[in-house]
Amino acid sequence: VTEPVRSVVYVNGKYRPSEEATISVFDHGLLYGDGVFDTMFASYGYIFKIDQHLARFARSLRAIRLEIPTPIADLRRAVIDTVARNGLNNAYIKVVATRGISAEPLLDPRGCTPTVIIFARPYLSLADPAKVSTGLHAKVTSIRRVGMQALDPRIKSLNYLNLVLARMEAYAAGCDEALLLDDHGYVCEAPGYNVFLVREGHVVTPAYSILEGITRETVLELSAELDIPSEIRAVSPYELAVADEVFLTSTAGGLVPITRVDGQAVGSGKPGPIFSQLTRAYDALQESGRFGTQITRAAIG
Amino acid sequence: VTEPVRSVVYVNGKYRPSEEATISVFDHGLLYGDGVFDTMFASYGYIFKIDQHLARFARSLRAIRLEIPTPIADLRRAVIDTVARNGLNNAYIKVVATRGISAEPLLDPRGCTPTVIIFARPYLSLADPAKVSTGLHAKVTSIRRVGMQALDPRIKSLNYLNLVLARMEAYAAGCDEALLLDDHGYVCEAPGYNVFLVREGHVVTPAYSILEGITRETVLELSAELDIPSEIRAVSPYELAVADEVFLTSTAGGLVPITRVDGQAVGSGKPGPIFSQLTRAYDALQESGRFGTQITRAAIG
Repeated sequence: VTEPVRSVVYVNGKYRPSEEATISVFDHGLLYGDGVFDTMFASYGYIFKIDQHLARFARSLRAIRLEIPTPIADLRRAVIDTVARNGLNNAYIKVVATRGISAEPLLDPRGCTPTVIIFARPYLSLADPAKVSTGLHAKVTSIRRVGMQALDPRIKSLNYLNLVLARMEAYAAGCDEALLLDDHGYVCEAPGYNVFLVREGHVVTPAYSILEGITRETVLELSAELDIPSEIRAVSPYELAVADEVFLTSTAGGLVPITRVDGQAVGSGKPGPIFSQLTRAYDALQESGRFGTQITRAAIG
Repeated sequence: VTEPVRSVVYVNGKYRPSEEATISVFDHGLLYGDGVFDTMFASYGYIFKIDQHLARFARSLRAIRLEIPTPIADLRRAVIDTVARNGLNNAYIKVVATRGISAEPLLDPRGCTPTVIIFARPYLSLADPAKVSTGLHAKVTSIRRVGMQALDPRIKSLNYLNLVLARMEAYAAGCDEALLLDDHGYVCEAPGYNVFLVREGHVVTPAYSILEGITRETVLELSAELDIPSEIRAVSPYELAVADEVFLTSTAGGLVPITRVDGQAVGSGKPGPIFSQLTRAYDALQESGRFGTQITRAAIG
């Protein structure tokens, strides 16, 4: 039986050893996926853009009409505290809030007591680090991203089975990662990632049916600082075939190059120069502590 | 704090008191909604169509490529045993299987140890019984059902936030229940229910973008036995406005009349004669024990 590695986990205001960090089987977060989350990371002893992440988490809560008893300011302290209690300088951090428990486990969000969870793990990458250096092979999947008319991808919800199935479809085709199209057939996301491509020196990223990725936003900011023109617009699958570079961005992974799409090499078939330039700038940004919040228990009293 | 009512719950082969029936916060069923379920019910001491439910559960498992260590025959015994251990003759029964736990909680279904849960509660109805006698008021929601190209509604998955949000939209409009349209604008489901309407003596139910409801199937079988013609086809929202009757079907609720849609009375504004005829036949079917499996601990050794 697989056991998660031990750590200290925040569950409804208490810090518990991970083996006791549990929720009821009656929690609506489990039974109905009725909840939201946000993922943050720390590196060089700083949590990156914590307030942007918490603001997005608050938007996710609002979008599903979930009010939790913990004010965002308290949640901020608890996030820092959870990372500190685990003794981590580099961390993968997740905050989860669910509708919680009601007297009976029916599909009814009324009368529930919410559940709030925070955990921190030594920094994890969504992508296999061995493959990141040479680039991932991606599959454009037959499975489409859930549409905004059903459940907006901007909501970081507990309903990611759609993305899991896309990943499994990619694996079954011998690929490392999935690229999903939206309802209209435009490229939108990879599971847990935003998508970028490079054409004629411009970085291009989809505008619609996507998560408002904070790494995506950061890459666009860095592009501006580096005088690399950027375009936020609809991206058709055709553009994956003719792009000079394709890469993904994620809090849990940073920038990840895609060097093959559906068996065909992207550009030179190696991670490209603009990807490399942006990756260096992204790493330097982390090391600088800019946009970072120091992990200190003293700071939180 | 709301606490679920006490009962005995099956968790990975062990029977636990409900307050100890928990899963890890790292379970992929919680973090990603990576899992499936099925709901059954018992009445008059019989579990209704248990093998049809378990066959559907097995299809859901296959559709998300989840293999659980428990054979379906063992699961069948565990379902009966769970109901018996709770001393129930009338029960709401749920079986849940999740991808479970992996070494690290990333969005990757590989290397997980699955979780299997079974619980039984005294029979619960999805709809407020006080309202069922006069009929529910329904809202056609702006939120659409998740499309089959993203996550087929035939999969009873842990990703029901789409349905929760539709319900909340209906509540906010002063209604009791939501009616959802599919990607193409056709009527498909209510949260946890299939939809039926009656026109000129025919019962009509949507063909596409729906759960393969076992109560739906049963109502179609009873219609045939009662010589009521039935049609399985695309249903446009227009037909809700001109229908003589509208009703919902669900394992957790049986047949539920809708007497108002978006503020307008359905037909006479009261539960209709075909609804009443089918409801009587459905109740008689339960009482007869036909399609029923007796809840006996002796039977399971």
